[in-house]
Amino acid sequence: MNEFDLIRRYFSRPVPPGYLGAGDDCALLPIGAGKQLAASTDLLIEGRHFLPDADPASLGHKALAVNLSDLAAMGAQPLGCMLGLSLPKIDEAWLKAFSEAFHALADAAGCPLVGGDTTRSPDGIVISVTVFGQVEPGRALRRDAAQPGDDIWVTGTLGAAHAALQWLTGQWPAQPALLAATRAALERPCPPWSFAQKLPGLAHAALDVSDGLLQDLGHILEASGCGARLHYETLPVDAALAHLDEAQVREAVLSGGDVYQLCFTSPPQNRDGIAELARTSGVRATRIGVIESAAGLTVQDAAGGRLPISSRGFDHFA
Amino acid sequence: MNEFDLIRRYFSRPVPPGYLGAGDDCALLPIGAGKQLAASTDLLIEGRHFLPDADPASLGHKALAVNLSDLAAMGAQPLGCMLGLSLPKIDEAWLKAFSEAFHALADAAGCPLVGGDTTRSPDGIVISVTVFGQVEPGRALRRDAAQPGDDIWVTGTLGAAHAALQWLTGQWPAQPALLAATRAALERPCPPWSFAQKLPGLAHAALDVSDGLLQDLGHILEASGCGARLHYETLPVDAALAHLDEAQVREAVLSGGDVYQLCFTSPPQNRDGIAELARTSGVRATRIGVIESAAGLTVQDAAGGRLPISSRGFDHFA
Repeated sequence: MNEFDLIRRYFSRPVPPGYLGAGDDCALLPIGAGKQLAASTDLLIEGRHFLPDADPASLGHKALAVNLSDLAAMGAQPLGCMLGLSLPKIDEAWLKAFSEAFHALADAAGCPLVGGDTTRSPDGIVISVTVFGQVEPGRALRRDAAQPGDDIWVTGTLGAAHAALQWLTGQWPAQPALLAATRAALERPCPPWSFAQKLPGLAHAALDVSDGLLQDLGHILEASGCGARLHYETLPVDAALAHLDEAQVREAVLSGGDVYQLCFTSPPQNRDGIAELARTSGVRATRIGVIESAAGLTVQDAAGGRLPISSRGFDHFA
Repeated sequence: MNEFDLIRRYFSRPVPPGYLGAGDDCALLPIGAGKQLAASTDLLIEGRHFLPDADPASLGHKALAVNLSDLAAMGAQPLGCMLGLSLPKIDEAWLKAFSEAFHALADAAGCPLVGGDTTRSPDGIVISVTVFGQVEPGRALRRDAAQPGDDIWVTGTLGAAHAALQWLTGQWPAQPALLAATRAALERPCPPWSFAQKLPGLAHAALDVSDGLLQDLGHILEASGCGARLHYETLPVDAALAHLDEAQVREAVLSGGDVYQLCFTSPPQNRDGIAELARTSGVRATRIGVIESAAGLTVQDAAGGRLPISSRGFDHFA
């Protein structure tokens, strides 16, 4: 049984009218006239998601960033967040670095920390973050809203976080200069929360790239009942990956996780609007393919051939 | 440094207008016309909050109940909840019992599970629950709203959960029949969520009794800048404690945690309204004392003497 089966079997239940339950980047809850509440939660466990010696400032930043990324993926405006923190001991230097980085990102995103829970854990550190945002009813960017003919877009660049992780864990031969150039992408992701709030009305479906472009785009295709064709040469490969082997680049760009940028679909008539929004938001947005009515995901190279792909991704219980 | 200092030093920050930050049972967030969002989160760690062999149905119930108790303590109407769950392994019998009890309480309270996060933990089980509720702006029952002359009320009975915990952990000599009679209070607390939603307008300040009546009432007194006199003989001692030593009863009733009932204050002219609300809600509500303008907390016995008390409670980092 994998993570998705477990959720489906034990925790996905029909939700009342006006709600959106498990299965998208955020849940949606009705909160009266003119607004829906968007909410998402993440649990980060020492030894599973980070090592005991992980930089506390990076942890504080990333714990919130991955949740802001979920709000962005719904097109929601951040409203606030809560933090659960369980620590084996009180280490003031750790707490200072962690909390300052957390608050700095919260301030930048307009997502104040409003409450939480602290406790002592017998084993490692546990971090639980829940974010709240708001969106106009019916305007949230759901995974099931892609339509044939939609352009497929991605924000930011792809591959850097994956490459950094391979170098840090020794999966790839050491490249210290390139690790230095990519490490921030892994440890300090900056999801495009301002850009994302203005996407409702322009985009149809969206999600954040956390498990890998192919796997995540696959979720949109499955939920929307359609297929897609990606143009490999249009993918915004991170500049730091320019001189790697083609096999490494492909793995990083197509299957690399921890990106925390958006993949979204939008009708072709909105191309100018999206380009303009990207410009004014200081966000790179790249058209990388098209939604098709027939099922299946094809990655096409510059010559029009099909790249052999496997839609790998990360399953916490695999 | 204790839990409260830690929160104050690293995580309490000024929040924007319209928000209520850390320090009450729930945070409050502005969500447009006519509503405030109330939110609370709790982190439960194996080895700290429960043992590895804890009954999964009780865990599923209690993980949500303690959060519903926080919503009740603000007078908020439950809206939904999220669950983060980290497991060392997939145990389907455990998951079935846990999730069924969780959903059963969520259904009863009108607080559907709308999303969450599952992951694998290297060590023990971690459970993180976040609840959302709504309340009319300015009507939430805050800790800082008690006024001199207010009656002090408590719902339900006191002492049973504490007694059960002492017997289960061998702190008190075994009493199997009494353990059987009190165990549900510890493992399946039922906060008065329906009653609580109708308290705004009748009550001033409220909180839930989780760390012990004296310590929790102390939070109201500190936040409201006042004192209180409790009448010991009026306290609703749980019937199962009737034949215990007086010292055991005092400890359980005054300092026992895990109660998840409300302590609230209300002006005397609302006595009939509260009694009527309690009757129609099927909740026991008992007047146990009065708020005074002078600081200090006095517990008075039937003869008018002062009971010697120490405001013990639970500090996670003590």
